[in-house]
Amino acid sequence: MTQVFTNCRIATLSAGAQTPYGLIDNAALIVRDGRIAWVGLRDDCPAAASHVETIDLGGRLVTPGLIDCHTHLVFAGNRATEFEMRLTGVSYADIAKAGGGIVSSVRSLRAADFDTLVAQSLPRLDALIADGVAVVEIKSGYGLTIVDEMRMLRVARHLETLRPITIRTSWLAAHTVPPEYAGHADEYIDTVVIPGLRLAHAEGLVDAVDGYCETIAFSIAQMRRIFDAARALDLPVKLHAEQLSDSKAARLGADYAALSVDHLEFLDPDDVPALAQAGTVATLLPGAFHMLKETQEPPVAALRAHGVPMALATDCNPGTSPLMSLLTAMNMGCILFGLTPEEALTGTTRYAAKALGLQDSHGTIEVGKVADLAVWNCEHPAELSYWIGGSSLSQRVIGGSVA
Amino acid sequence: MTQVFTNCRIATLSAGAQTPYGLIDNAALIVRDGRIAWVGLRDDCPAAASHVETIDLGGRLVTPGLIDCHTHLVFAGNRATEFEMRLTGVSYADIAKAGGGIVSSVRSLRAADFDTLVAQSLPRLDALIADGVAVVEIKSGYGLTIVDEMRMLRVARHLETLRPITIRTSWLAAHTVPPEYAGHADEYIDTVVIPGLRLAHAEGLVDAVDGYCETIAFSIAQMRRIFDAARALDLPVKLHAEQLSDSKAARLGADYAALSVDHLEFLDPDDVPALAQAGTVATLLPGAFHMLKETQEPPVAALRAHGVPMALATDCNPGTSPLMSLLTAMNMGCILFGLTPEEALTGTTRYAAKALGLQDSHGTIEVGKVADLAVWNCEHPAELSYWIGGSSLSQRVIGGSVA
Ligand SMILES: [Zn+2]
Ligand SMILES: [Zn+2]
Repeated sequence: MTQVFTNCRIATLSAGAQTPYGLIDNAALIVRDGRIAWVGLRDDCPAAASHVETIDLGGRLVTPGLIDCHTHLVFAGNRATEFEMRLTGVSYADIAKAGGGIVSSVRSLRAADFDTLVAQSLPRLDALIADGVAVVEIKSGYGLTIVDEMRMLRVARHLETLRPITIRTSWLAAHTVPPEYAGHADEYIDTVVIPGLRLAHAEGLVDAVDGYCETIAFSIAQMRRIFDAARALDLPVKLHAEQLSDSKAARLGADYAALSVDHLEFLDPDDVPALAQAGTVATLLPGAFHMLKETQEPPVAALRAHGVPMALATDCNPGTSPLMSLLTAMNMGCILFGLTPEEALTGTTRYAAKALGLQDSHGTIEVGKVADLAVWNCEHPAELSYWIGGSSLSQRVIGGSVA
Repeated sequence: MTQVFTNCRIATLSAGAQTPYGLIDNAALIVRDGRIAWVGLRDDCPAAASHVETIDLGGRLVTPGLIDCHTHLVFAGNRATEFEMRLTGVSYADIAKAGGGIVSSVRSLRAADFDTLVAQSLPRLDALIADGVAVVEIKSGYGLTIVDEMRMLRVARHLETLRPITIRTSWLAAHTVPPEYAGHADEYIDTVVIPGLRLAHAEGLVDAVDGYCETIAFSIAQMRRIFDAARALDLPVKLHAEQLSDSKAARLGADYAALSVDHLEFLDPDDVPALAQAGTVATLLPGAFHMLKETQEPPVAALRAHGVPMALATDCNPGTSPLMSLLTAMNMGCILFGLTPEEALTGTTRYAAKALGLQDSHGTIEVGKVADLAVWNCEHPAELSYWIGGSSLSQRVIGGSVA
């Protein structure tokens, strides 16, 4: 099956491009069996063979399908009431006393069966799809028992069968220490995190292993034990790091050649070269920064100076980032962190793919890659970071098929 | 024609409500000829007569249709390139030299005919509609000649015929002094602003008169002349005030019993009692605050203390607020300005209606008002300010009809 997409402006986002965004005006693109077979100037397009479907894109902009490389999209209920308490001046301590915080999401998740989780998560996935997203990473982390964590990832995998989308999963049992193990984090790791990882991996549920490394969560030493278990299973790792303090978690990530370290508001610029060396992606999450009204910005200038690839994601979660728009995350990345619109789009395509270990198959429009595309009612790719709300999406193309 | 909406949770947002948001659980609502005829507990609902259509809302939340009371929705082109220049470090002076700034929007508007403006504005209107918006205010202000300003408002009026929506227009020829009148603001007022207002009013194009009162735009004395012309035509006034400096424009608004004064980051708390006295609405515009990365917040505590009604709006415009989501404006109002979710929702319903002089017909769910409703896939009205992106809208009801 061959399709020719023609009469378009293509932002390839490829690494060696000679133009900003890898822009090609008056472009065309050939897809064969779901992969990109040719991309270039329309006038240079090889003569169409027979059995070819030609799709005229009416001059529209084409980018790689967007990639949301950090979400907690599968959850139950929401925490709008807690949000309201916070805004009416109730203290964190009193919110916790009233049953708020992450434990309320754990309670809701444990009470929600498979079908309930699917039904509640699907509208969030659809919101991302409406923004031109083609790949979504989804973490466990609200179950905190082996069966509940595994159910979360089964739901994540199941979502892939309900929509034209690629889902990548992360085992995040080390999200927080559950109440029943309070003060016994090591026991929780030995009883739930590591044995559960092995079981979930055996069932094919795990693409990467994640953890929350912070004084209020797991220590460097504890994360090392979990990462060693991941390494034994040949699974890549990633990390929630330096969100609230400079805990040196990013260095730990670099030690383990993590796919990505995420958040990074308190990253020490001195630790940036280690990330560059390790090829680890710095994933920035402006939604949480916005919702928490943080003031400490991640060290973008240092990351830029050392050539550390920067990704952007929604961090979609019920506590600190109830954000269901990757385009809005791109706008926030520009406004709150000073990224350029080109960095923002690279961060939701090429580098977001790299943050998921998909750099050989996704994230750019280059020959051999999967033909996941987003077609926009836009003239210029900077518009994707400029508008807030609405959506300029004309259509998605997933594996070569209009989706 | 009578409809009964039943099996729902209604947030009436009415002024005298005994519960937060005026919430009524297990509620019902009767609409007769497009107006609300009865609202209350489902169990108290008067027996249905014949010729009655009953709509079961499946337990969903119902609010008044949202009202976006400050937009510049009709414009041509966009300024994403300027946005990108700013983020790559180009100075404002160099952007202006490159033809950027509001004059670029003026140039684009003047070059765009009626049909082009309709085609470009409609997707923005549709984005607002997808957020449950039932009433949109639209300003002129990018034409800055009589014919171009009038064309903008004709487009605004025309949009009302294309969608189930109520449009309110504001004559904002005093948006900026156009290049051809540089240094001759008074002459511009005498030649364009006031004569154009009379012509546009005669054609039924004007619901209110607006102006931009700031050192970089029009002075207090100049705005007085325009407001006097408005008063002679019996038209209400409103004002862009105290966005960049404390120019005492809010006091001017209070003097003229303005429907609203808008922006207000630099409003002097000492001027707040005058607004309360005049019954003038304070319209807050967090989208522009976000995009300009401002740090000076409007004096919400003083406004609250003096009982000044606070509205929230998108300020949708190509330069400083390319925001097409009123729900996102509500989230930003909470996060950036510290509003509570209840203040945010009141600010896009009851007080937004008041900012447009529609307080007797719109903005709350009360007997006698127009049956403009939004039905949400939500349990609690705080969720409307909590989520960013996506939309929890189930359906809109406009004048009693499912739209
Ligand atoms: Zn996260
Ligand atoms: Zn405005």
